[in-house]
Amino acid sequence: MRFISDNAAAAHPKVMEAVVNANHADTAYDGDAYSARLDSAFSALFERDVRVLWVTTGTAANCLALAALCPPYGGILCHRDAHIEVDEAGGPGFFTGGAKLILVDGTGAKLTPEAVAATCERIWPDVHQVQPKALSITNATEYGLSYRAAEVAELGQLAKQRGLAFHMDGARLANAVAFTGDSPADVTWRAGVDALSFGFVKNGGLNAEALVLFRTDLAEEIAIRRKRSGHLLSKGRMLAAQLLAMLEDDLWLTNARAANDIARRIGAGAPDRLLFPVEANELFLRVSADEAASLRALGFDFYDWRAGEIRLVASWDRTSDEADRLAAAIAAL
Amino acid sequence: MRFISDNAAAAHPKVMEAVVNANHADTAYDGDAYSARLDSAFSALFERDVRVLWVTTGTAANCLALAALCPPYGGILCHRDAHIEVDEAGGPGFFTGGAKLILVDGTGAKLTPEAVAATCERIWPDVHQVQPKALSITNATEYGLSYRAAEVAELGQLAKQRGLAFHMDGARLANAVAFTGDSPADVTWRAGVDALSFGFVKNGGLNAEALVLFRTDLAEEIAIRRKRSGHLLSKGRMLAAQLLAMLEDDLWLTNARAANDIARRIGAGAPDRLLFPVEANELFLRVSADEAASLRALGFDFYDWRAGEIRLVASWDRTSDEADRLAAAIAAL
Amino acid sequence: MRFISDNAAAAHPKVMEAVVNANHADTAYDGDAYSARLDSAFSALFERDVRVLWVTTGTAANCLALAALCPPYGGILCHRDAHIEVDEAGGPGFFTGGAKLILVDGTGAKLTPEAVAATCERIWPDVHQVQPKALSITNATEYGLSYRAAEVAELGQLAKQRGLAFHMDGARLANAVAFTGDSPADVTWRAGVDALSFGFVKNGGLNAEALVLFRTDLAEEIAIRRKRSGHLLSKGRMLAAQLLAMLEDDLWLTNARAANDIARRIGAGAPDRLLFPVEANELFLRVSADEAASLRALGFDFYDWRAGEIRLVASWDRTSDEADRLAAAIAAL
Amino acid sequence: MRFISDNAAAAHPKVMEAVVNANHADTAYDGDAYSARLDSAFSALFERDVRVLWVTTGTAANCLALAALCPPYGGILCHRDAHIEVDEAGGPGFFTGGAKLILVDGTGAKLTPEAVAATCERIWPDVHQVQPKALSITNATEYGLSYRAAEVAELGQLAKQRGLAFHMDGARLANAVAFTGDSPADVTWRAGVDALSFGFVKNGGLNAEALVLFRTDLAEEIAIRRKRSGHLLSKGRMLAAQLLAMLEDDLWLTNARAANDIARRIGAGAPDRLLFPVEANELFLRVSADEAASLRALGFDFYDWRAGEIRLVASWDRTSDEADRLAAAIAAL
Repeated sequence: MRFISDNAAAAHPKVMEAVVNANHADTAYDGDAYSARLDSAFSALFERDVRVLWVTTGTAANCLALAALCPPYGGILCHRDAHIEVDEAGGPGFFTGGAKLILVDGTGAKLTPEAVAATCERIWPDVHQVQPKALSITNATEYGLSYRAAEVAELGQLAKQRGLAFHMDGARLANAVAFTGDSPADVTWRAGVDALSFGFVKNGGLNAEALVLFRTDLAEEIAIRRKRSGHLLSKGRMLAAQLLAMLEDDLWLTNARAANDIARRIGAGAPDRLLFPVEANELFLRVSADEAASLRALGFDFYDWRAGEIRLVASWDRTSDEADRLAAAIAAL
Repeated sequence: MRFISDNAAAAHPKVMEAVVNANHADTAYDGDAYSARLDSAFSALFERDVRVLWVTTGTAANCLALAALCPPYGGILCHRDAHIEVDEAGGPGFFTGGAKLILVDGTGAKLTPEAVAATCERIWPDVHQVQPKALSITNATEYGLSYRAAEVAELGQLAKQRGLAFHMDGARLANAVAFTGDSPADVTWRAGVDALSFGFVKNGGLNAEALVLFRTDLAEEIAIRRKRSGHLLSKGRMLAAQLLAMLEDDLWLTNARAANDIARRIGAGAPDRLLFPVEANELFLRVSADEAASLRALGFDFYDWRAGEIRLVASWDRTSDEADRLAAAIAAL
Repeated sequence: MRFISDNAAAAHPKVMEAVVNANHADTAYDGDAYSARLDSAFSALFERDVRVLWVTTGTAANCLALAALCPPYGGILCHRDAHIEVDEAGGPGFFTGGAKLILVDGTGAKLTPEAVAATCERIWPDVHQVQPKALSITNATEYGLSYRAAEVAELGQLAKQRGLAFHMDGARLANAVAFTGDSPADVTWRAGVDALSFGFVKNGGLNAEALVLFRTDLAEEIAIRRKRSGHLLSKGRMLAAQLLAMLEDDLWLTNARAANDIARRIGAGAPDRLLFPVEANELFLRVSADEAASLRALGFDFYDWRAGEIRLVASWDRTSDEADRLAAAIAAL
Repeated sequence: MRFISDNAAAAHPKVMEAVVNANHADTAYDGDAYSARLDSAFSALFERDVRVLWVTTGTAANCLALAALCPPYGGILCHRDAHIEVDEAGGPGFFTGGAKLILVDGTGAKLTPEAVAATCERIWPDVHQVQPKALSITNATEYGLSYRAAEVAELGQLAKQRGLAFHMDGARLANAVAFTGDSPADVTWRAGVDALSFGFVKNGGLNAEALVLFRTDLAEEIAIRRKRSGHLLSKGRMLAAQLLAMLEDDLWLTNARAANDIARRIGAGAPDRLLFPVEANELFLRVSADEAASLRALGFDFYDWRAGEIRLVASWDRTSDEADRLAAAIAAL
């Protein structure tokens, strides 16, 4: 039973159906009828005008956004464990032309205004040191914590005061919203976010992510950067159709709730082993190597984290029964 | 009836079937069972060991290859009308870190050893002028001409003499091979090609292209660059499965032959209007604006080229009947 | 007798004296008293507020300006023979992060509004083709022609209409101004120029060039880029002092007039051999290989250009007598 | 009395004399007679064949070296306080095309093999995380500590084992060598260093630093990168002449000894205030804000470091008397 990653889960049947249905000749790139509907569909969800560009990966969404939000000679404040720092092979440096990630500490990969401000204060405001130009947070975080809208708003206010652009890596925004109950609008643009990488692939999508621009003036530049970086697919309708299917009847939210519920059930079986509260679809547990081996022997698949720790990720296609069996197995260790 | 581009054609049913069948949980990125079969499948086709990486666009394939073949301070010799020069939004400059495209002339977007050598001779061999480090050709060319294996070999020999890496943009290599009858091996690595962007999306694929490396030592670097540029999709099995489906029973060749046949039939109706012989699936015709309008009034869709010229592109999903009706319509102008 | 380049001429005694006098401890980088005087000294010369940054090479001045004026995904219109295209080792691509030089033709390396506009018209306004974002001209041109202020103004108007930033490579602006008699203001910002690489090294300076910004808002960004590219020297006072010495009593103009006069005298001896009129300090002459050899046998040193052509460059430190002897030698061929 | 930085000290009279003497027409760039002598002069000093390129700043030397030693997608291990991380405005990211600095901790900005190895161990060896490709150390360190040859050799061995290129930022290598008594050869290439930024500007030079290549195969590439980044000065002879003057009669060592002696004398007056032992020409002292104010009132100029700390830098042109007066003033606080 796979709890190793939501990355590799199956695509949802409705997504697959949408892809199959979009398989007819249409205008290439993003000139098709599906892509044309994206802005309005996401504008409805976010309760304001937004511009949306499809891309195939979260790395592309993050890096395209950051390249538009931060000049090559600027710095991007982010958590030390942020995906853009740890897991994107230096992509931000490549897309921005050498901008620097300025690392901030915080429990559970979560940033606080205090920690961000303190980091900024340590930077000498001259031409010798790289000056921060953007702030990027991940929601839900790399450790499965969810920002409340008010927390994002505090960071947004700080960003505004310091002249920083504000980006949210929402690879698991669906899970965060499913957990907090905040509206997509409240946790993003109303809290000061300029650009959002809105993830779908981990949540039932096939290979389409949405780069949502609240600063709509950036759309033209990013569309060029998307082409220039090889991310303008010929048959973009197949991506747009996925996103539309995910928005229809809030499938994105249904899937995220399902995944969160799986994670919650597993966590309920091991409250004292949790490194962090379960606020999305990821769990980090204190589990010894021997214990991990015995879980694997029972057919459970997961990721070894630091020594004595494991990571479990729930996806929309896991069942409650699987979760309960895993919870029981952990409780029985 | 769409003759505007092969880019936007439907994916072949067998390709769609392969994608649907690959929709189950598996290891993420390219750790899945489908991706694992790519090297051997393409090695069989090319009659030698090759390394293959899937990407979603020809621009990504071209630019990743060029970034590995040419240093940031080098130059890439290519035709003035090459896709990498004209249609990739400066992608080669982005991926290479500022390498320069050095433009060469040639009829029908085709390069000759003489023209390439003459261009090299005009470059002063010092640190002030950008020195050529790579050669890139497109086969079939942007004007629908196909290189014979012997022609490629002459260029390959020149490249070797001058210490140039040799890249082939084979967005329509299938059509070229279908026309010339040369083997994939003869027209690529046996002729000195180091890396090949092998196109499938214009030829019945959904969104998977193959970057085929004859210099297998480049695979590790390019795999990193693929991730770094946001081109390592989570569910890579959906791309690998497409490529495998295209190779099975030579579907790629069957589709290309079908498209070439459509183009040949159309061209047969207008031999005196052709700007170039029909050697693949593209036609460029002398057609006045009035004539173009009357063709469009009959339901034919195509691209206006330079003044008094149109471009028609045949794809695998057009029918002989459509082709013959178009040929007749042109003949009747 | 060296007529091979003004690059390698001696520095003027007053410049050397200024450097020697500035050799005392002061604040590092550009925090010294000399650097502090630059803005006002150049503002007086240009009859308006300007911001000035010293750099050590014309390539640095050109590329820093272009990086601020053109985004990485944009194009820079310039002449096919422009220094930035031919002689800077791809520096513009490096500094801009991959922007493309879009080449325009024109006699004597001079651009006309018609040629620039025609080049722009051929570019399809979509995300596939690189869109022009800046225009760069060289004055005096690489073939020693000088733009009149009215010519620059026409180009400036076109740039404004098309939303292009406007850069002037003035490596030999002094010679152009000495020839035309136009004021520095008229031939630059009053004609729409945003940033000027103002050359001094070829004109009696030691190793200081001035990047003059009429768009003063760019100064902060360029100061950062200067540091980032390793061009912020510790003892900047030695550069600033040179520039101040060159401005004092219009030494820059005196030197340029002297060099132009040398060129004029040489050209007077060979009016029918001139490829272009002598409008600055460079001459291009039709001289056969045998003739060139006989001139060299007389002790004259110069540069072979294309077959049957030579280039002569006059510098401030050549004498009228040397010029007249060379003129006579050419006339006697 | 200036103890704020060695950056802004005067150039040594012999250096100025060399510059003045080199002021005559010669071949441009690095084609002159002075530049031609550099390789042999430095080869003698380093007891083996080296290739040397002059540049005007330490940032340029460091970044050109790193760009040749580390691919754009690689990581450069360095201390958290290294100049390349803290004081070069992101230059390494710019020159390398986005390589990442991977930060290592260590007392006094000094790296140990254990700390470097531990950092490497934490990096997952896949395409998602940036893999280290180079190691860079600063000698003397940013806190004025000097590596012994044996310490460098241990790091060199580790670098070799792990396939890392090895760069030394020797902005103050002269001071380190003056302190340890190690030979230049022992502390660099014999210890495994591939490329050395050998600083002269802080040590009596005017504006010439030497990039010394023990991997002589890199010289051609770096010469191109030097031009491309605008660092190939027209009158390079003025830089080469400085370096030759610094090597003559070991002026570089004499100056460094003088500066170290100044620092030692000051430190002797405040042994209990020292944050680090004085092993070069920099001192970091625990001095309260009030104490700092009273020192400044006595005419001493220096840099405020972290709260309650000051930095003093001795240069070759300070006198023993000044040092002793400062030492006395500190002792009297």
